[in-house]
Amino acid sequence: MIHELNDTIVAPATAPGIGAIALIRVSGKEALSLCAAIFYSPIGKQNLATKKSHTAHFGTIRDGSLLIDEVVATLFLAPRSFTGETTVELSCHGSPYIQQQIISLLLKKGARMARAGEFTMRAFLNGKLDLSQAEAVADVIAADTEAAHKLALQQMRGGFSSDIRLMRQQLIDFAALMELELDFSEEDVEFANREQFVQLVKSIQLKLLPLIDSFKLGNVIKNGVPVAIAGKPNAGKSTLLNTLLNEERALVSEIAGTTRDSIEEVLNVNGIAYRFIDTAGLRDTNDRIEKMGVEKSYEKIKNAGILLYVIDASEIHSGQDLSDVITQVTSFQLPYLILANKSDLCPPEMLNLFKKTDKVLSISAKQKDGITEVKNALGNLLFDEETSKHSEVVTNLRHFDGLQKSFFALDDVLKGVQQGLTTELIALDLRRALAYMGELSGEISNEQVLDSIFSRFCIGK
Amino acid sequence: MIHELNDTIVAPATAPGIGAIALIRVSGKEALSLCAAIFYSPIGKQNLATKKSHTAHFGTIRDGSLLIDEVVATLFLAPRSFTGETTVELSCHGSPYIQQQIISLLLKKGARMARAGEFTMRAFLNGKLDLSQAEAVADVIAADTEAAHKLALQQMRGGFSSDIRLMRQQLIDFAALMELELDFSEEDVEFANREQFVQLVKSIQLKLLPLIDSFKLGNVIKNGVPVAIAGKPNAGKSTLLNTLLNEERALVSEIAGTTRDSIEEVLNVNGIAYRFIDTAGLRDTNDRIEKMGVEKSYEKIKNAGILLYVIDASEIHSGQDLSDVITQVTSFQLPYLILANKSDLCPPEMLNLFKKTDKVLSISAKQKDGITEVKNALGNLLFDEETSKHSEVVTNLRHFDGLQKSFFALDDVLKGVQQGLTTELIALDLRRALAYMGELSGEISNEQVLDSIFSRFCIGK
Repeated sequence: MIHELNDTIVAPATAPGIGAIALIRVSGKEALSLCAAIFYSPIGKQNLATKKSHTAHFGTIRDGSLLIDEVVATLFLAPRSFTGETTVELSCHGSPYIQQQIISLLLKKGARMARAGEFTMRAFLNGKLDLSQAEAVADVIAADTEAAHKLALQQMRGGFSSDIRLMRQQLIDFAALMELELDFSEEDVEFANREQFVQLVKSIQLKLLPLIDSFKLGNVIKNGVPVAIAGKPNAGKSTLLNTLLNEERALVSEIAGTTRDSIEEVLNVNGIAYRFIDTAGLRDTNDRIEKMGVEKSYEKIKNAGILLYVIDASEIHSGQDLSDVITQVTSFQLPYLILANKSDLCPPEMLNLFKKTDKVLSISAKQKDGITEVKNALGNLLFDEETSKHSEVVTNLRHFDGLQKSFFALDDVLKGVQQGLTTELIALDLRRALAYMGELSGEISNEQVLDSIFSRFCIGK
Repeated sequence: MIHELNDTIVAPATAPGIGAIALIRVSGKEALSLCAAIFYSPIGKQNLATKKSHTAHFGTIRDGSLLIDEVVATLFLAPRSFTGETTVELSCHGSPYIQQQIISLLLKKGARMARAGEFTMRAFLNGKLDLSQAEAVADVIAADTEAAHKLALQQMRGGFSSDIRLMRQQLIDFAALMELELDFSEEDVEFANREQFVQLVKSIQLKLLPLIDSFKLGNVIKNGVPVAIAGKPNAGKSTLLNTLLNEERALVSEIAGTTRDSIEEVLNVNGIAYRFIDTAGLRDTNDRIEKMGVEKSYEKIKNAGILLYVIDASEIHSGQDLSDVITQVTSFQLPYLILANKSDLCPPEMLNLFKKTDKVLSISAKQKDGITEVKNALGNLLFDEETSKHSEVVTNLRHFDGLQKSFFALDDVLKGVQQGLTTELIALDLRRALAYMGELSGEISNEQVLDSIFSRFCIGK
């Protein structure tokens, strides 16, 4: 794909199908003149080209004498538009036939059909959005829970890329001094204060680290938090899953493409998508087939983000019993909740025991008791003190990758300084770090990166 | 449904699903203040309410401190909007989640969810569209061929309803005079000149008649022209149908709800939808089952709008043979074409014979010869001298019904005058005619009629 900005692109901007209204978006140097050539006001041909930015005009679209539709044309003159180019939005009747006719007409007049994501790409190329903001546009559109929506919107409105840009600029200042040293290399001068430089690199690493850490949280929020439901056979795992499912009308959907070895259901709980994974009952067994099932369960629990461990409360007779369970559960090294199920069959002294730790909740999956508490506790597990320190959350694999690469390149820079490497070698690692950070903020971009980013978009965005 | 205009309605206006942009439409007295309450400009809260009509404003939608989306709000102040009320269009990111959030927020602030067709109904109730124009809005959106689109658009832009209004006004003037006569009934005066009155009624009937006639054409254009493909067994009917289908990429679809007794395929040929109906071979038979099939074929042909009669050209050996076929075909009393199939197997003297009448076309369905000529001839059959006289075409069953009722009520008026009935009786029929014509133009409407019209619409229109 060649990223030309000289032609004028057109595409439907609203969802396909029949609606009351559909929007067609035209952007580029000729957007105004192309639309003006086919737009007629109710009092004859009206020159759209003389109108002000951010104004809406009622009229008709005609192909010569042939009337195509009544429309409202809204003008966004460069640079005051999403793309930064002059953009005309034609709001026509929401018929696929009409949209096709209007777009055909514009193509005939010289516009070009926009490729997927091309409007957003132009917004980026024209400096209206940085790359991570542009990437967030697709996430904003795809977000279907409150938490995913919040994250995407935060990223679109700036996110961490301005911080990256600032840090990169500070590094560039040092890099310039180092390049100067290289020019004077035979004189063995040191323009760049190594101590200050090390301090700067370390402080940047300290800022990158929480962003890198936040990816795990960001990723689960975007793609759903995997929650393993585990426990001994007949503890009530499936009943719990069914109760959770029945309580929530907002069943998101089954995830396409995930393995169906175990039951996996996606639920939107308090604005966050959870992927609940029911596992085979965990118990010691000599049966070969059952053993494989249990091993698979252990595997799944390891890959989950949260463990809900269900016990049959009526089988807990002492503090020792409970502490044995806790020992077993903590061995998975995951955020967890122990759900003491069948609490209705449990003596009061045991219920009092459970209340002593906030890691154990008494529930009755069958009677639907304590389910709200489970949901709230889930949210708290996700946003505990550990994670709440992330003011910025990284959700994008490309960003995570770029942040990690920047971090490790800076590590190499530090090592070089500490090992007393030549300025030449240090400058090499520094340039590498600057390149990664530049790609991250979108200050450096290549066609391949852009194409892979924007091909994720739908046509018209 | 109560047709209140005092509240403010909101609905998504674009097709459901994910797109780059979605439009939410808010219309009513509070549209501006409701939107102003949730809209923030980039430089803080901006009072939308102070902005001019037909201007677009970039900003954010917030629920208190919670950011929901970046939007463009376009204002259409009363009466300069589609509904005639103040309307705000919020153009947000095309995510179902975001649309739902914004609409929920507006509902919370006091808007009401719009019912199906309610925006268009308000446009009608506020006098922005007459009833037949409003009805055409749904047709414009649903039109999926050039011809159907043209008709719907013509109707939306005025169509015949202004003529009806004018004729009705002329009748009202006479009716007033007659009512005056009734007031003076004991004095036996005649304010309304009976001769002029009869002339007016007759001239109105003359204008109604072509509109009524045009319905058959309008209806077939809107719903597809039923074309029966008939002929003896093995003449090549199915091959012809397959060739037509393969030639046209733009296969519209099978019509939902039609009986599938026979193959019926919808093709968009030169902008008109044709419903091709393949019929069982026509031949004399004693087989009871086959006889039923043949009878069914005759039935289908009778209900078609056009007959394509396929003959095996190699079986035609003389002018007499051909004239026998023509006699048989004309007995169906339909616009027809005789397709002399297998023309590649036919001697040249017979081909010359076929060329003598434009009702016979030589084709080879198998070799795909002559198919373009068939398509063009189909269009000519539909728009022959007979039908091209209709400058206005009626496509709507309600209009057809109203036109017929008006016509017959006027007939009763005429008969009454000719039979010398009392003014009282004539005035009764005249009032009936005026009522039908008033419903037709939308000058008279009742809730039941309106509800049945607008419930056809989609939400948001």
